[in-house]
Amino acid sequence: MKYLLLVLLCLPLGLFAQLSGLEVDEKRMENRLLQLAEFGKTKNGKTNRVAYSPGDELARKWFVSLMYEAGLKVHIDYAGNIIGRREGQDPNLKPIVFGSHIDMVPFGGNYDGCVGSIGGLEVMQVLHDNKLETLHPLELIVFSNEEGGVIGSRALAGNLQNATLDMKSSSGYTIREGIGRIDGNPDRIAEVKREQNSIHSFLELHIEQGSVLHDEGIQIGLVEGIVGIEWWEIKVEGFANHAGTTPMNKRQDALLAASELVLSINEIVRSVPGKQVGTVGKMSVEPGAPNVIPGKVTMSLELRDLSYDKMMRLFNEIKESAKKISQAHGVSIDFESLNVSSQPALADSFIQQIIADATNALGYSVKKMPSGAGHDAQEMALLAPMGMIFVPSINGISHSPKEYSTSSAIANGTRVLLETILKLDKQ
Amino acid sequence: MKYLLLVLLCLPLGLFAQLSGLEVDEKRMENRLLQLAEFGKTKNGKTNRVAYSPGDELARKWFVSLMYEAGLKVHIDYAGNIIGRREGQDPNLKPIVFGSHIDMVPFGGNYDGCVGSIGGLEVMQVLHDNKLETLHPLELIVFSNEEGGVIGSRALAGNLQNATLDMKSSSGYTIREGIGRIDGNPDRIAEVKREQNSIHSFLELHIEQGSVLHDEGIQIGLVEGIVGIEWWEIKVEGFANHAGTTPMNKRQDALLAASELVLSINEIVRSVPGKQVGTVGKMSVEPGAPNVIPGKVTMSLELRDLSYDKMMRLFNEIKESAKKISQAHGVSIDFESLNVSSQPALADSFIQQIIADATNALGYSVKKMPSGAGHDAQEMALLAPMGMIFVPSINGISHSPKEYSTSSAIANGTRVLLETILKLDKQ
Repeated sequence: MKYLLLVLLCLPLGLFAQLSGLEVDEKRMENRLLQLAEFGKTKNGKTNRVAYSPGDELARKWFVSLMYEAGLKVHIDYAGNIIGRREGQDPNLKPIVFGSHIDMVPFGGNYDGCVGSIGGLEVMQVLHDNKLETLHPLELIVFSNEEGGVIGSRALAGNLQNATLDMKSSSGYTIREGIGRIDGNPDRIAEVKREQNSIHSFLELHIEQGSVLHDEGIQIGLVEGIVGIEWWEIKVEGFANHAGTTPMNKRQDALLAASELVLSINEIVRSVPGKQVGTVGKMSVEPGAPNVIPGKVTMSLELRDLSYDKMMRLFNEIKESAKKISQAHGVSIDFESLNVSSQPALADSFIQQIIADATNALGYSVKKMPSGAGHDAQEMALLAPMGMIFVPSINGISHSPKEYSTSSAIANGTRVLLETILKLDKQ
Repeated sequence: MKYLLLVLLCLPLGLFAQLSGLEVDEKRMENRLLQLAEFGKTKNGKTNRVAYSPGDELARKWFVSLMYEAGLKVHIDYAGNIIGRREGQDPNLKPIVFGSHIDMVPFGGNYDGCVGSIGGLEVMQVLHDNKLETLHPLELIVFSNEEGGVIGSRALAGNLQNATLDMKSSSGYTIREGIGRIDGNPDRIAEVKREQNSIHSFLELHIEQGSVLHDEGIQIGLVEGIVGIEWWEIKVEGFANHAGTTPMNKRQDALLAASELVLSINEIVRSVPGKQVGTVGKMSVEPGAPNVIPGKVTMSLELRDLSYDKMMRLFNEIKESAKKISQAHGVSIDFESLNVSSQPALADSFIQQIIADATNALGYSVKKMPSGAGHDAQEMALLAPMGMIFVPSINGISHSPKEYSTSSAIANGTRVLLETILKLDKQ
């Protein structure tokens, strides 16, 4: 609400922003999203288009054909990223890059990265149809294997470890094998790396994947940044014993201590203002019989926030609390940091302003918000000023076949993307 | 401590109790326990003598041979119980019955039911060696498959359901098949049932399986009864959602609610005086990924106490608490009663007094306590006045190869059993 007011105050500024007068084709995008959902569809009607699967391969070929239709020069890099380029008037200018991905988590949703990919394609199509030539070159990228660890964008940022290539992907192939299947070349993947400041700016249109915009009836989410993510494995060790013969005051119940810690984590994360989140999503209890006192609990801890410092402050509080719980219950509690962390990636403030201007000029309501999920934009932010545009997810459902965003919401987001690109082009 | 004082006050009474002057052979029992541990021993040195396994079959044959040595008339009933009988002076009197079991849980301990079986055999041997004829007939029973659901004693009590016979036992055989393997006859098992009041009294010597006696340095546990056991499955259903995009205040986190319930169960069980215990030993969290808010938790609840009413009062409090937790977290919490319950079985107060007298006369320290674990005695209590004698378990460890009770503790318990039988014989 605060941000909404802020933006309303900026409205007079927004009204000065020139709109291009170009119109996106809502129906064409809707049809293309439906067509895309057919690639990887299984007998039960759900789509399972994980990266490197036959559905992914076919969808990519289809997408390339649409890029050609939009007049783009198409190139697949060694990481399997599909890059459609449209030259600008000045060959010396750096490209404005935008895009998203078309792979999904197993039996995921048909909007997720598809919206930003089809929306980006629509921008190119509209410019092509209107024969509008920008100053800067434009690049539309469909990043490879976003869901399996932002592999394509990570390669572009020069952040891809060799060990990662040998990890098994959801398709059953290793990432190395998978990249080979989609016309990449894992042996030459290092060459994909782009130089810092070789890109003018990067934009990604995406569904929110949460329910904030839906619940508040807001049309556009203006992303302040992509949260950092840290994962820990927590091990609570007590003493497994006979549940019938061990009195209540002689127990070292690992689950009792773990339960107290779960509640404490929630309290600590909520104890300070802000949009940080903390989650215990995974827990296993051993030996796991109704008549045996739990001797060991293994659980996950995930923290996310735009500020890495804040995440670490919260984590230290959690560790302090764990120390007290461990003493009270006669158990040990250990934290192991898992190497899946990602640093927060802040959106460029100037790009945020341009997105806000475009949104206002178009007359849409807007709310500033962090992206709680990871995106290719977080890697691209290492190379260039970055901005992200969210459209509402109905009921906030994501990574599920029930994921849905309306055609008009997608068209709104695409209009904002188009106007933002044209405005950036003039900078 | 309260009970210790009580017993100390009774000491003068105990001193009047005549001791038989018979001596048990501690070394013989120790050797026999070591021999018994060889049956079912695996390559790693641990014994895995589950009911109906080859080790169980061999151990039973060995035990029968020892019963013959002790001058007993041996009979294996249709349920596979081994019954060694010693006639008394008066053929019209009902038998005094005692015994335990020699099967174990997978890779269990070598003391558990073995102590009461070998101790009971020692009593018979001593009487035989001393040519002492009791008034009542005596029966030593080695019950079949205690660990798989007190099968042998349940058959004697007429409590064995036909469906139970088709359940798979730890040996891999169904109980029906298993009973056939140990010279029983599952088709005629109903004939095993003993009439109520056809038995004078039933006694079982057993290890405590907890650490109360060990911790307090007490020699004999005088069992007040075997606790009733009730099991429930608790289902907590919230809403699984993206841990990054769902704000803290929009979550329906099933694990958060479940954790609160685990703590509440512990508080409620400990909120009233007594030896009742309540345990959540099993928990599964779905979908179970670090970056997904748990949508569903399934967990166990076990309550045990000597008073069924108290168990139900506690359970109702737990349900009330669950209702509040479910409202606070926007989740549903449902309890399903599982059909594994057993009713509390109280020890006969007169037999308790005789055991106390014998213990005092022998000069041992004693403590009244419930048995938190199930035993064949709970089924036998349906047929006759029942009493149980506990000896200390070192560190309270049970159902583990580390289970141990000292030879002298076992000899103490056997002396109490012997003197109690002789005293009961005179009633």
